[in-house]
Amino acid sequence: MTLIVAMDLLGPDPGALGRAARELCPYASGFKLGWPNIAGLGDSALRAVRESCPHRMVVADLKLADIGYTMRLIVEGLPSADAYIAHAFPGRQGALDELHSYLSALGKKLVLVASMSHPGSREVMDPCLGRLIDVARRVSPWGVVAPATRPWVIGIVRRELGPVKILSPGVGAQGAEPGAALRHGADYEIVGRLILGSRDPAEAARRVLEAHARARAP
Amino acid sequence: MTLIVAMDLLGPDPGALGRAARELCPYASGFKLGWPNIAGLGDSALRAVRESCPHRMVVADLKLADIGYTMRLIVEGLPSADAYIAHAFPGRQGALDELHSYLSALGKKLVLVASMSHPGSREVMDPCLGRLIDVARRVSPWGVVAPATRPWVIGIVRRELGPVKILSPGVGAQGAEPGAALRHGADYEIVGRLILGSRDPAEAARRVLEAHARARAP
Repeated sequence: MTLIVAMDLLGPDPGALGRAARELCPYASGFKLGWPNIAGLGDSALRAVRESCPHRMVVADLKLADIGYTMRLIVEGLPSADAYIAHAFPGRQGALDELHSYLSALGKKLVLVASMSHPGSREVMDPCLGRLIDVARRVSPWGVVAPATRPWVIGIVRRELGPVKILSPGVGAQGAEPGAALRHGADYEIVGRLILGSRDPAEAARRVLEAHARARAP
Repeated sequence: MTLIVAMDLLGPDPGALGRAARELCPYASGFKLGWPNIAGLGDSALRAVRESCPHRMVVADLKLADIGYTMRLIVEGLPSADAYIAHAFPGRQGALDELHSYLSALGKKLVLVASMSHPGSREVMDPCLGRLIDVARRVSPWGVVAPATRPWVIGIVRRELGPVKILSPGVGAQGAEPGAALRHGADYEIVGRLILGSRDPAEAARRVLEAHARARAP
């Protein structure tokens, strides 16, 4: 499947997280929790989702961007995700190398942010995209984040990094149509407000998957 | 005063955070808490320090690096700090502009990371330093983080950004001598393991302040 549901909107509420995971379990490949969910709950935010929808990927979107020592301290306290998102920006040496070794030893996935979905990405991240992709090439993570809102970046990541998994935010509230990122080569679209802000989240998720099927039709 | 104590080592333990803040209150200008302290405790980690040492600055080192919407959601859940650290690299538009407006309206300080203290900083952040400083210039935060381990960066930040406050990590465990960053133009040195990992943290803090006094002597 192709849909990862971003849970930020639900905040630090284990009941709401569990209910949403249960309802969306048939439609989602995974659930992405961010600091708005995790900051006050810690690992129990991740466990609430895992227990309500086992066998789907739980992605901790920590957007880590620190020295290796600190990133490891943070992840040690949040062990219940399958995948962890960090920025490529801090570089490999003394940062992502340490995080990647730590996660690999536990059989966990690392996902690196190469680019973001908002207009400010043009100020530093786009001009430095070549260097960010070089970091990703050397660290060799399971996945890379590249925005649905600026699909040319998805094409560059695919061309430069080959079979890495590409996860694309920016669908819905941020402007991209469901299916747009898949059409440009992404593996997953990350959708939050369009689904969780809807009156019928399961129906909204079903419609996103229909758009995905159309995008992938030959 | 010139010392900010980094509390990461103490983890998500309100008792330990409170005791350390009480003991180091006479020596510290402020206390910096990171995700290793905050994930799981949320705002109560910040309150434990504030209540044990009122009238000192509580700095939430969230190293925020996200779109404006998400950074604001995160900070709304952690209201008890005086200052919040975010990365400069996500840029202003749709990111740091929204965070800065939100914090300013509450009378809170924004601190931007322009550069970091580990070797991986040379891979992306140093080559992109000019752009990071441009972001800081346009956002106009209260403070900027620049590393004691690579003091030439402190000089550039001071020259380019004038009277901004400069906060320097990297003293002690990461290799820089206490006083080195002040000598190069920083306003505060951020010290963690050298103090909290010592058998007598108050005595270690006192020695750091002595080195600071020597560094500032004409």
